[in-house]
Amino acid sequence: MSIATAASLRALREQKPLVHQITNYVVMNETANVTLAIGALPVMAHARREVEEMASAAGALVLNIGTLSDDWIEAMVLAGKAANAAGVPVVLDPVGAGATRYRTETARRLLAEVDVAIVRGNAAEIATLAGRKAEIRGVESLGAGDGGAELAALAASALGVVAAVTGPVDHVSSGGEVISVANGHELLGTVTGTGCMATAMTGCFVAVQPDRPLQAAAEALVAFGIAGEDAARSAKGPGTFHAGLYDALYNLDPDALDERARVRER
Amino acid sequence: MSIATAASLRALREQKPLVHQITNYVVMNETANVTLAIGALPVMAHARREVEEMASAAGALVLNIGTLSDDWIEAMVLAGKAANAAGVPVVLDPVGAGATRYRTETARRLLAEVDVAIVRGNAAEIATLAGRKAEIRGVESLGAGDGGAELAALAASALGVVAAVTGPVDHVSSGGEVISVANGHELLGTVTGTGCMATAMTGCFVAVQPDRPLQAAAEALVAFGIAGEDAARSAKGPGTFHAGLYDALYNLDPDALDERARVRER
Amino acid sequence: MSIATAASLRALREQKPLVHQITNYVVMNETANVTLAIGALPVMAHARREVEEMASAAGALVLNIGTLSDDWIEAMVLAGKAANAAGVPVVLDPVGAGATRYRTETARRLLAEVDVAIVRGNAAEIATLAGRKAEIRGVESLGAGDGGAELAALAASALGVVAAVTGPVDHVSSGGEVISVANGHELLGTVTGTGCMATAMTGCFVAVQPDRPLQAAAEALVAFGIAGEDAARSAKGPGTFHAGLYDALYNLDPDALDERARVRER
Repeated sequence: MSIATAASLRALREQKPLVHQITNYVVMNETANVTLAIGALPVMAHARREVEEMASAAGALVLNIGTLSDDWIEAMVLAGKAANAAGVPVVLDPVGAGATRYRTETARRLLAEVDVAIVRGNAAEIATLAGRKAEIRGVESLGAGDGGAELAALAASALGVVAAVTGPVDHVSSGGEVISVANGHELLGTVTGTGCMATAMTGCFVAVQPDRPLQAAAEALVAFGIAGEDAARSAKGPGTFHAGLYDALYNLDPDALDERARVRER
Repeated sequence: MSIATAASLRALREQKPLVHQITNYVVMNETANVTLAIGALPVMAHARREVEEMASAAGALVLNIGTLSDDWIEAMVLAGKAANAAGVPVVLDPVGAGATRYRTETARRLLAEVDVAIVRGNAAEIATLAGRKAEIRGVESLGAGDGGAELAALAASALGVVAAVTGPVDHVSSGGEVISVANGHELLGTVTGTGCMATAMTGCFVAVQPDRPLQAAAEALVAFGIAGEDAARSAKGPGTFHAGLYDALYNLDPDALDERARVRER
Repeated sequence: MSIATAASLRALREQKPLVHQITNYVVMNETANVTLAIGALPVMAHARREVEEMASAAGALVLNIGTLSDDWIEAMVLAGKAANAAGVPVVLDPVGAGATRYRTETARRLLAEVDVAIVRGNAAEIATLAGRKAEIRGVESLGAGDGGAELAALAASALGVVAAVTGPVDHVSSGGEVISVANGHELLGTVTGTGCMATAMTGCFVAVQPDRPLQAAAEALVAFGIAGEDAARSAKGPGTFHAGLYDALYNLDPDALDERARVRER
């Protein structure tokens, strides 16, 4: 099951897959730019009249519930089903699940009606979906620093997905196996939407290996975390870090990735 | 009534209040990043099915009418009433009031149906709401450089709020008293949404002192203005200024704030 | 017909025209900042209840179909007709025409119901509207590097507009004449929304010379391309390039523009 971030990044840059994203208003520009910087092609489309056509033509579909409304939920379900029918992998970011009933119910509905390959969230969001108690303030997870590996495995089994629980250390699991990724930098927590960016990266990586969602999810977090480390080097705060993050993704050197990956598989 | 920006900033960073923002599409990412950079937690949610739950759980609610539509207005009213019921202070940014009838009427409706603690706008927007004639082009105030102090006092009395009129010099009033803030930098006028950012900052500061809206509004403008001064130092134009603004907010040194504040209270 | 970018930029900075933009969620902040950086005033408004009033008061109206939904299309039609009635030039960006039927049909409907002065798009989008076969992935044009001049002339004649086809070299035509612009930098392709920014720039330039849409479209691309060249000089990747682009637009020196323009008119 071992991961191969360098090889996947090379494939991604070669194939430039289209990643269809139905995501929130706050981060649309940012996740599109992450997608471009890593080497894929983003497209944002949310109208019910076009999402099926767009999702079917994509390499991956990313659903993100960060700023919900009823019309968008219907579009997500339609797009998800079309992606399923076309064999296009679906990644879900359950932003704020646990913070309001509406978000929790929507995330559950998407998981019930769409065959989701990967769920990427923080500990509180994933715990909520796995039926555990979680402490959340708005869309931020509080406290849940430990137990991420167990949580990822539990959620993966309970939901029948690959679960990626991100935090100071990220944990990705398909149920039995767990891959832990310790790359990253604390400045990632000072910019809004870095979780959503990690989800977009996951869409990019799974688009070039739809049959390996576990590896794709872990590789995306390795690449994103290393880019965060690179961006932090010359950052003077969240603003220059944010700009530097796109530079770092664009300049990621595949040759150095596998050595720099701080990964534990078990 | 004297303001204490340093103490409030320390409280804000300690308490990390949740600031629920129903704001416009143009600035969502930016006001979320300002909120994070200063030390609070942003959450954007606009669905009628969740705004009451979210607003009730927040430390402050920010309503911003920059890109309106009917659904969003209904959500703002619902959120505002829920915030009122929960004792959560409400901050209103009447973007473009005076530019179209729709915006003017919406700002007036929100003021009528919701107990608003603070209104933050430019001179033309505040003058429109106070029943004065104003010159506005799109969402920019033209001309009204002088008379801000009187306008703030007039609007505060007429509307029963704390009024914050921002411009080259900002004026904040609860009716009788006026606090003037001369911090800031002209580059703030070259980046879209810096007014909306000032409003988000106001939400952050009032969240930790809901009973002192006058001081909170002035302190937010002091802190934001000083960050603007810091960001201008190494900026080469609006782009690097914009990135530097988040760095500056994040790196604001409370120990220096009260000395650097260019405030006149009367 | 010769273009005069320097003179137009000076007029733009002097007049600060209001540019009303009904555009997509991904780039709203970015096109607003481009508009401000070059010296005009942006306003975003999409509600049916206010677009006619806003468009009538503007110097130009920009319609961009990057993230469509039915309500927004109706608003675009209303705004376009109001702009027509008021003599306000309309610029259309048919983002993703050819990628889904919904986008193609919407672009065609806008061209049928609104008197559009300038259409700015990539080769695939313009080819789709001109009735040619095009290869598009999401909203990116593939392959169509050559033949831009002929395509621009063909589309201009077929659609009765000024057509601006952007790519490594841009081609602008009113049917007979073609102006080619070779300014720009490949980093423009690494940031999302640079096409939309070029369209916003077009709106700014036509606002100060509504009777010269051909020249305005070419001048906008000259100015934007030169800013891209300037921004690339100190960029380390897409993030610093993006920030630098606003700096470069803001700092554009009119005295150097006409000499730096890489333009061929025929």
